[in-house]
Amino acid sequence: MRKTAILGIGQTKVDEHWDKSLREIGGEAAFLAMQDAGVDRVDALYVGNMLSSMVSGQNQLGAFFSDWIGLWQRESVKIEAACGSGAAAFRSALMAVAAGDVESALAVGAEKMTDKAGRDVTAALATAADADYEVEQGVSFVGINALVMRRYMHEFGWKHEDFAPFSINAHANAMHNPFARLHEKVSAEKFEKSSMIATPINLMDASPVGDGAAAVVIVPAEKVLRQPKVVVAASAAATDTIAVHSRKNPLFLNAAYLSSKRAYTMAGVTPDDLDVFELHDAFSIMAALSLEATGFAERGGGVRLGLENQIGVRGKIPICTRGGLKARGHPVGATGVYQIVEVVQQLRGECGATQVEGASVGMAQNIGGSGATVLTHILRRE
Amino acid sequence: MRKTAILGIGQTKVDEHWDKSLREIGGEAAFLAMQDAGVDRVDALYVGNMLSSMVSGQNQLGAFFSDWIGLWQRESVKIEAACGSGAAAFRSALMAVAAGDVESALAVGAEKMTDKAGRDVTAALATAADADYEVEQGVSFVGINALVMRRYMHEFGWKHEDFAPFSINAHANAMHNPFARLHEKVSAEKFEKSSMIATPINLMDASPVGDGAAAVVIVPAEKVLRQPKVVVAASAAATDTIAVHSRKNPLFLNAAYLSSKRAYTMAGVTPDDLDVFELHDAFSIMAALSLEATGFAERGGGVRLGLENQIGVRGKIPICTRGGLKARGHPVGATGVYQIVEVVQQLRGECGATQVEGASVGMAQNIGGSGATVLTHILRRE
Repeated sequence: MRKTAILGIGQTKVDEHWDKSLREIGGEAAFLAMQDAGVDRVDALYVGNMLSSMVSGQNQLGAFFSDWIGLWQRESVKIEAACGSGAAAFRSALMAVAAGDVESALAVGAEKMTDKAGRDVTAALATAADADYEVEQGVSFVGINALVMRRYMHEFGWKHEDFAPFSINAHANAMHNPFARLHEKVSAEKFEKSSMIATPINLMDASPVGDGAAAVVIVPAEKVLRQPKVVVAASAAATDTIAVHSRKNPLFLNAAYLSSKRAYTMAGVTPDDLDVFELHDAFSIMAALSLEATGFAERGGGVRLGLENQIGVRGKIPICTRGGLKARGHPVGATGVYQIVEVVQQLRGECGATQVEGASVGMAQNIGGSGATVLTHILRRE
Repeated sequence: MRKTAILGIGQTKVDEHWDKSLREIGGEAAFLAMQDAGVDRVDALYVGNMLSSMVSGQNQLGAFFSDWIGLWQRESVKIEAACGSGAAAFRSALMAVAAGDVESALAVGAEKMTDKAGRDVTAALATAADADYEVEQGVSFVGINALVMRRYMHEFGWKHEDFAPFSINAHANAMHNPFARLHEKVSAEKFEKSSMIATPINLMDASPVGDGAAAVVIVPAEKVLRQPKVVVAASAAATDTIAVHSRKNPLFLNAAYLSSKRAYTMAGVTPDDLDVFELHDAFSIMAALSLEATGFAERGGGVRLGLENQIGVRGKIPICTRGGLKARGHPVGATGVYQIVEVVQQLRGECGATQVEGASVGMAQNIGGSGATVLTHILRRE
């Protein structure tokens, strides 16, 4: 397989874009990525999206966006893996270029979530879980994560306030990201006093939904003249049981462990070599579990990294440097592509106040459902 | 890229499977394909499905089926391109094996359509069309095809009864396919007297929905010992505008033309070399347009092939040899995989009364929406 590189990136602000349709936000991100790449066409398009059939009455987003962007006649499909759809689309685009099937590909993650009532979106998000054995019992997607968080606190003796650093760090970093959904500092006191959603998950533990789109242009690495060159050092995917209750250990993200382990091997790195890690902090508990599954902390110890101030841009492993899902926002099917865009920004040195100094290797990990589909990508500046 | 082959096939009957869930029918097809291939695991799984989020409340079918089939920890995603989802999943599986990323892959097309009321399914199917500019006007998916058929009849002077041979041929062939949804002969009289759905499309012009799943196991061609060996000679995809009204010529399937042209070049064949063609006869008008776009008839002349008796198993180009979408049934996201399974059956010589004698090259063409996403595959017996 050929080595691939990211030639261009584009993103819209994550927001309530009531004045823009799905095609408009997806098109905007795609055009920005192509403009950044300096190309006016690509050979193929891969779209990451989870909810459009339910929220916008629109399926077949491959042809839909090809048409809108003006990539007529080219190949295009949609890839869906719940909240992991974005990275799954990115991986499909990578594969097409790596295999030599196409010379360039565009991966677009796009999601419109605010055009429907909140309860409809909550129901749509629940399709990420097991319809027969989880959702049928009346549990929502946040409810499933709440059960996991409660058990984690019980097993390892953490208090709710111990999770505050994840939220505080994400919000602090988002202050410097113009594309972030929330520009609002969070204090330990505000974290503890926020409205409860599903005990023990409160508003400051949970990432906000939003409308957003992000895009990247992928080409063979040997064709890139632009400096610095950002290459794809590893791409790996793994799955776990779809329902949390089917797992031997509901507190360990086995698919995250497997896909990151494989990615480390492919890239020839260890966790110590990573300068930045855009992880999937859909809920604060997921940030802790992600750090444990990827080898940055022992089991039950993810929370400690936050408490010891190791997750900030000058910490041992900077996470959510552009705000993460918590503050940049979580337009579900687009999130995985936002993460890739943000790692590229770090490796290019474009992050201003939240720039990780000398960042040369970065990882993005996108998770579908409560850990059922996990995709890990490692990018490197060359 | 490596040459790939189909090692195993499996399918369920297309039917109203009210006693079986989506996971059960998909699992059944997957197990049958693995059993037929003589393997008890594969490296990756690609699922084709269009409607499960809306009909079954279930997304993330990659992890969902990996879990159910027991392919834990492996890579798996869902690919969606409306009614072209099945072949799109097959193509993703091909790419993964061809690129050398995996040594074996399973493509499963699965769709559950009969658990909801007909009008809900009609609304869900409309997500294949342009939500903003087609569906907003109140037109259903069959309505869009009816407009195309009416225009075609006007342009080329055909009468409704001239389309009867497509339906008669499909139903006659399905009599010999135990997996077909309908086992019921159609006469010219019955064709003309059927209930009108959307003028001029009546019940005998339209393919029936149904629950169904089909699966294939793909491996590198060099690893196949089984005889006859069925190899993938070509795989090509193209898109067109999502809305019919945006096309220069709404009566020409340009994406079908482009993807079949590319497939012919890849396989080194011409239409004359094909022994069997499983085309996408969602409506009788689509059968005519497909024959024209792929080079079997001049524009406006597709209908003549039926009238001249050239589409039967002993005709110039046998189509829908196992019943086609019209009589085998059209479980939308699964259909593209059924077509592949059926071409394999022809190349293996397993089709009994509808066997095309000495079939050695076969083509399957799967269409998403009203011609927006088209995937063409050519298989060859070696």
